[in-house]
Amino acid sequence: MTIAGTTAEAIEAAESRAGALFDRDVACRTLGIRLGAVAPGRATVRMTVTDSMVNGLGTAHGGFLFLLADAAFSFACNTYEPVAVAQAAHVTFLLPVSAGDELVAEAAERARRGLSGIYDVTVRRGGDAVAEFRGHSALLPGRSRQIQNHPEESA
Amino acid sequence: MTIAGTTAEAIEAAESRAGALFDRDVACRTLGIRLGAVAPGRATVRMTVTDSMVNGLGTAHGGFLFLLADAAFSFACNTYEPVAVAQAAHVTFLLPVSAGDELVAEAAERARRGLSGIYDVTVRRGGDAVAEFRGHSALLPGRSRQIQNHPEESA
Amino acid sequence: MTIAGTTAEAIEAAESRAGALFDRDVACRTLGIRLGAVAPGRATVRMTVTDSMVNGLGTAHGGFLFLLADAAFSFACNTYEPVAVAQAAHVTFLLPVSAGDELVAEAAERARRGLSGIYDVTVRRGGDAVAEFRGHSALLPGRSRQIQNHPEESA
Amino acid sequence: MTIAGTTAEAIEAAESRAGALFDRDVACRTLGIRLGAVAPGRATVRMTVTDSMVNGLGTAHGGFLFLLADAAFSFACNTYEPVAVAQAAHVTFLLPVSAGDELVAEAAERARRGLSGIYDVTVRRGGDAVAEFRGHSALLPGRSRQIQNHPEESA
Repeated sequence: MTIAGTTAEAIEAAESRAGALFDRDVACRTLGIRLGAVAPGRATVRMTVTDSMVNGLGTAHGGFLFLLADAAFSFACNTYEPVAVAQAAHVTFLLPVSAGDELVAEAAERARRGLSGIYDVTVRRGGDAVAEFRGHSALLPGRSRQIQNHPEESA
Repeated sequence: MTIAGTTAEAIEAAESRAGALFDRDVACRTLGIRLGAVAPGRATVRMTVTDSMVNGLGTAHGGFLFLLADAAFSFACNTYEPVAVAQAAHVTFLLPVSAGDELVAEAAERARRGLSGIYDVTVRRGGDAVAEFRGHSALLPGRSRQIQNHPEESA
Repeated sequence: MTIAGTTAEAIEAAESRAGALFDRDVACRTLGIRLGAVAPGRATVRMTVTDSMVNGLGTAHGGFLFLLADAAFSFACNTYEPVAVAQAAHVTFLLPVSAGDELVAEAAERARRGLSGIYDVTVRRGGDAVAEFRGHSALLPGRSRQIQNHPEESA
Repeated sequence: MTIAGTTAEAIEAAESRAGALFDRDVACRTLGIRLGAVAPGRATVRMTVTDSMVNGLGTAHGGFLFLLADAAFSFACNTYEPVAVAQAAHVTFLLPVSAGDELVAEAAERARRGLSGIYDVTVRRGGDAVAEFRGHSALLPGRSRQIQNHPEESA
């Protein structure tokens, strides 16, 4: 997934930023989410749907599909400085997903302007798209990725 | 949260349908989600944010806020027959959320027409709205809530 | 449409701000859009669908339903200082609309926090909702409503 | 904008379907919208922003940007049989637009499954994206493009 015109240095910096964020992500670790290929504005994550992700209709809760897409989005928009956070997102569910399914979510930047960005994420099971996601990010100019607690939340 | 013009029988039927779905929802149970008040087209759920829901920035992963809103939405649109599923949803994140926060998501029907419905969900921490969600549902006319596996997925 | 706890002065100020914006709105005048009741965070507009708003399927182009909802949204979020602009919006089309139909769009504020706001608009034909719209606004702190041209566009 | 693997016949059929719809579209003609390249699942339209499209802030009303994107979307999803209509759409406004600006909206299919489709549209002024749009379509199986009036509306 290297992109024409992207230097090896830019990819390395992107991998290092997204990787550092992933390493501190307790939610991703708990859910078994793995970080795949990363490039400036792009990231891929994978997850196996477990029995504990199933809703009352016997299919995977849409919230976990959203979460996987949102994780890909978050790593993709954090391949730059400064820190970016999700502001809003839209998701469409295309196919039901079951326990045991292997999902891959691929995020790609669509637009970036000032402090705002738009990222598209497709969640796939094998060759089938099971969900389409579009996320809107906002950059936090004064914010470093080193600070673990959100300023508003800390004592 | 009883609604003017809603009979006790209608509320009881709504509670029974949403409650049956909730009882089989492994994801909700695993995450500690509790079902609160239910009425036709309305449902409230609660969740305490745990340490394992935290992302690399030290705040609750937006996916869990979405999941909580989506659960409220799903119970609200399953207060009728037949089974309804989420087709699409939009979420806006208003405030960061931390481990230990108590969240309440309240879903209310905005429109229903033919096989489609629109439901608005506000996720609150105390008096503050932390996320606004709008979900689009689709009814599955031939589908009973008793069938645990999705037809496409079963052998 | 007066709101409990809203003073006559607040309503007057809201009407004056939205009204000034409406008076300069060439698009609304050209399309025959009329401004109705206004209160802080709320506005109602009306439009009669004309023959020139019809698409190739013989129904009103969805763009005009969006535009009407967007106008209500824009007047509602400009009942305060400073100037607010639309950042993003989602619309759902519920029923087809025809030439000659009288439409009313009612905007109500759902959330406001810092520089951002969320407004819900329902477009109705008589008693039927024909479209549901949710708009996200951004305040432009340094911007006066008196400046007619956008800074980036002026020479 | 020919697409690898698309035959000349498929492109011709797509052009013929979208073209017939465009020819009957009074709204597009009235607004000076021109239809450009068409292929299966894709369509491009152009519009010059006029003085009568300007709002009270002196910029183009967002409704006209939406309408242009929605037109591209509608022609793109009507490159197949049967008739498709817009169900829902999300738009993000990236840059203000002025009277005199030349806009191009390009729609491309993102997903299609059963009766539903997702189409992405970028609206550009020269090299700059000014709006990003995502539309959800629904096919109307029993509906022919020859019928001018919507069944529910006809006498």
